[in-house]
Amino acid sequence: MSFRYPNGQLFSQENSDIEKSKITKKTTFANRGMRFEEAINLSNEYYITHDKAVIHKKPTPLQVVKVDYPKRSAAVIREAYFRQPSTTDYNGVYNGYYLDFEAKETKNKTSFPFKNFHPHQIEHMRKCIAQKGICFVLLWFSTLERCFFLPSEDLIFLWEKQDSGKKSIPLSIIEKQGIEIFDKIAPRVPYLDAVNEYILKKE
Amino acid sequence: MSFRYPNGQLFSQENSDIEKSKITKKTTFANRGMRFEEAINLSNEYYITHDKAVIHKKPTPLQVVKVDYPKRSAAVIREAYFRQPSTTDYNGVYNGYYLDFEAKETKNKTSFPFKNFHPHQIEHMRKCIAQKGICFVLLWFSTLERCFFLPSEDLIFLWEKQDSGKKSIPLSIIEKQGIEIFDKIAPRVPYLDAVNEYILKKE
Repeated sequence: MSFRYPNGQLFSQENSDIEKSKITKKTTFANRGMRFEEAINLSNEYYITHDKAVIHKKPTPLQVVKVDYPKRSAAVIREAYFRQPSTTDYNGVYNGYYLDFEAKETKNKTSFPFKNFHPHQIEHMRKCIAQKGICFVLLWFSTLERCFFLPSEDLIFLWEKQDSGKKSIPLSIIEKQGIEIFDKIAPRVPYLDAVNEYILKKE
Repeated sequence: MSFRYPNGQLFSQENSDIEKSKITKKTTFANRGMRFEEAINLSNEYYITHDKAVIHKKPTPLQVVKVDYPKRSAAVIREAYFRQPSTTDYNGVYNGYYLDFEAKETKNKTSFPFKNFHPHQIEHMRKCIAQKGICFVLLWFSTLERCFFLPSEDLIFLWEKQDSGKKSIPLSIIEKQGIEIFDKIAPRVPYLDAVNEYILKKE
């Protein structure tokens, strides 16, 4: 969906995302000036276009409080608040499998902080695994420029051991238990390769 | 997520939904003063709580244009617009199956108007079916107080025949090709029973 500003300029979510990527050049996805989330979204588009999978990012949940309905133009939300998502960001279907994942990045070089995940997301993953879904996280070490697929089973196991004092997952564990994803031109983040490897191991 | 109004009153999405159900009593779900969508949401909650399935309604996609960041309080969205969803409203996982559906209601007594579905939703269903997902629509005839499960395969077939002049799906066809769902106390809309019946027929 797109709208026209009073000056006639077209506004669309796509344009907005492009603007965003121009501004936030700090964390790059493999030197292409691209944020990790955008790289995932582009990969999803690639997979959909090539009939490989149907995976979408869920919209950010907002609490709408006030809406104006101006004559002859679109409804304008005048007061709304961000809400905490109760699920992971991405889900969809791949060759009969339900896929459910979260994509997160860190600047850390030696470990991935647990604070990137919320307790309700862990709970959601637990419930999806119980329903035989394929659940995982995509972890991007922006400084190292390395990307990993980590099954949610492993994440949950490590999460539960947090009591013993660890505040992050050591890279060495991720290297051992995860599957490294090497970025390509298209799709940017070929995570379905890792999903295939994971399914093969599991079955 | 919840917020406090300046008067100290707690605002939460849940409260808001309750308010909404109090106001919109026109279209009822089986005489319980409940809108169909709310009945579906409650059913999803029931299924999640009882470890039967993990199905969520996707948040309404909004285009955020302007955000204020007041000191010592939550960020306030001051300008945003509704965007057209590119997928169906509901998806999730049930016993290893990917479920994807849309829930719609009509006051019509003899047929269900096609205008309730957008071309991009039909396209989304087509792609999910190609990935072996279980896709369907839940149709609520509010005047008749009858609810049907209709496989998306059938909806798409009928949709494509629209050229021949039909603007809606006759109830008689829905009765024949769909599965009627009778409302219960919990879950309100026991659609997983229809899903099971559909899977059995298919396999």
